[in-house]
Amino acid sequence: MREVAVIGVGMTNFGELWEKSLRNIWVEAAMAAMKDAGVDRIDSFYVGCMSGGLFVGQEHLGSVLADYLGICPVPGTRVESACASGALAFRLGFMEVASGISDLVMVSGVEKMTDVSGDEATYALATAADMEYEGYHGVTFPGLYAMIARAHMTKYGTTREQLAQVAVKNHAHGALNPRAQYPFTVTIEQVINSVKVAEPLNILDCSPITDGAAAAILCPADRIKEFSTRPLIRVSGSGHASDTIALHSRKDITWLSAVEQAGKRAYAMAGVGPKDIDFAEVHDCFTIAEICILEALGFVEPGQGGPATMQGRTARTGQIPINPSGGLKSKGHPVGASGIAQIVECVEQLRGEAGKRQLDHARRALAQNMGGSGGSSLVHILEVV
Amino acid sequence: MREVAVIGVGMTNFGELWEKSLRNIWVEAAMAAMKDAGVDRIDSFYVGCMSGGLFVGQEHLGSVLADYLGICPVPGTRVESACASGALAFRLGFMEVASGISDLVMVSGVEKMTDVSGDEATYALATAADMEYEGYHGVTFPGLYAMIARAHMTKYGTTREQLAQVAVKNHAHGALNPRAQYPFTVTIEQVINSVKVAEPLNILDCSPITDGAAAAILCPADRIKEFSTRPLIRVSGSGHASDTIALHSRKDITWLSAVEQAGKRAYAMAGVGPKDIDFAEVHDCFTIAEICILEALGFVEPGQGGPATMQGRTARTGQIPINPSGGLKSKGHPVGASGIAQIVECVEQLRGEAGKRQLDHARRALAQNMGGSGGSSLVHILEVV
Repeated sequence: MREVAVIGVGMTNFGELWEKSLRNIWVEAAMAAMKDAGVDRIDSFYVGCMSGGLFVGQEHLGSVLADYLGICPVPGTRVESACASGALAFRLGFMEVASGISDLVMVSGVEKMTDVSGDEATYALATAADMEYEGYHGVTFPGLYAMIARAHMTKYGTTREQLAQVAVKNHAHGALNPRAQYPFTVTIEQVINSVKVAEPLNILDCSPITDGAAAAILCPADRIKEFSTRPLIRVSGSGHASDTIALHSRKDITWLSAVEQAGKRAYAMAGVGPKDIDFAEVHDCFTIAEICILEALGFVEPGQGGPATMQGRTARTGQIPINPSGGLKSKGHPVGASGIAQIVECVEQLRGEAGKRQLDHARRALAQNMGGSGGSSLVHILEVV
Repeated sequence: MREVAVIGVGMTNFGELWEKSLRNIWVEAAMAAMKDAGVDRIDSFYVGCMSGGLFVGQEHLGSVLADYLGICPVPGTRVESACASGALAFRLGFMEVASGISDLVMVSGVEKMTDVSGDEATYALATAADMEYEGYHGVTFPGLYAMIARAHMTKYGTTREQLAQVAVKNHAHGALNPRAQYPFTVTIEQVINSVKVAEPLNILDCSPITDGAAAAILCPADRIKEFSTRPLIRVSGSGHASDTIALHSRKDITWLSAVEQAGKRAYAMAGVGPKDIDFAEVHDCFTIAEICILEALGFVEPGQGGPATMQGRTARTGQIPINPSGGLKSKGHPVGASGIAQIVECVEQLRGEAGKRQLDHARRALAQNMGGSGGSSLVHILEVV
């Protein structure tokens, strides 16, 4: 296997982009990534998209997007693993370059979620759960994560304030991000007093419905000098794992086994452990999710995600900054794009190009993306060489 | 890159499988392929599915199917390229084994299309076209292929009888296939007098709406003796290409450029040409499609697809048997599964295990799968060593 580098990244602003269609925003992100990489052609591309069918009535994105980027007959591959679709596109592009099949591969993600009603979006998102045993009985994602939160509070004593602090921290980070959907700060009191969605989660515990696209360009590390004078950003680890789709099938719903397994595989490939990671972008679709992920990735001991957050250990000035971009919570969560937007943040931080968000020590980054209530997860590790 | 072999195949019967759900039929095909290969574990799997969201309200198949096959945390990747989703799964599994990342990979396809009404299925299928410029203006797939047929008849003098003969031939083949949805013969008169769908195409020119699943197991060729005493079936070529999604953007709508490009790439990788292929499974979603594909793959000169079919050159006793399985037309067309079902037929023919359908000379096979009206296509070449 060849060593793989990220030589370009690009993304749209995240938000309610009503004046643009799915193909428009994807092309915008793709062009930005190609410009950033300094390339005028690619060998193939991958696009993560959760549900073009339910959100905009358009499948077959490999053809649509190749067409609208003007690159036919270059092949395009659409992949889907619910909200982890973006990271799945990244992994497959990584494999295509690592294998030697292609040299210049674009990995991307897109979702256009605001063209349908809130009810329709909630249905579309619920198809990431077990529809036969969860969705069709009325359980949607806030409800599933509320059950996880309640179990975590019961088992470990995690508090309402600790959950809220995840949102407070991520909004503080996102307030520095010009591409964020909600770039403002919030307080613990505001989170706790915001509209109830599913006990104990309020609206400010939930990531939003978002339109957006993101892209990155991969090439073999030994060819990077042809394209770029920037520091080499190496993909040192990639892990992918599954878990049961329905919560009721899991031994312990507070433990995200797919995250643990994907993390272990990525750490093993990179030859590092959680203590060697300088910062991470993780899948904070709900505040409780970030707490469980901190534990499953080994950044903290089981049950310590809440206290660690409250102590500021995961803030941008803490020991292990989590979600310096603002995360899904503040930056927004166009489900197919989020996994690639995490990569964009990692690359900008590793290059020292993150502007007001720049972290002091950013040499090795971890990006963790997750499908549904944790039925699938992918973890990537990036390093500046 | 390592040499890759197919060591097991399996599929469900194709038809209206109302008593089974998507997860049931996929597990049935997956278990059959694992049994056929003699393996009790896999490293990862790919599943092609066009629209779990629109047909059954279930996305996130990587998690659902890993769960129901009982193999968590093994990762599953769902891919989509409309009706070419199955072959796309095959190509990605091929890359994963060729790269050395994994040794035992399942490639599969599934679609459950009969749980929705005919109108809903027609809408779901239309999302493989350009919905902004074709679908939402009322053009569905029979209409798109009818335009291609009319153009082909005008440009080359292709006749109504020649179109009908494609269906006659494929039903004659499918009548020998116990897994086919419509295993009966038809005559030219029956095709020409069947219900009109979109002038000049009648119902017997169209592939049906079908439930079904298919799977295959890939491994490195140098490990085949650990698993199988059967002849080695080698994957010698793989090609993937795109074309504009909308017909109106193409210079010549009778020419399937993505098929030509995918074919050229597969031929080049295998070091062969169309004359070296013993038989082929191709994407006869409509009778005109098979005629255009014969031309784009170089089996006949442009414009000669109709006459070659009428002369019997593509029958099972002809020079280049096309669709010995019965094709999409007679065997059925569960859109995400069709690309893998083509592989199942190729492998059974190459092994000499095709029963009543067995061809006399079957040493090198080609499988061609296509998305929408040709916006994407994949071609694979398999050989018995």
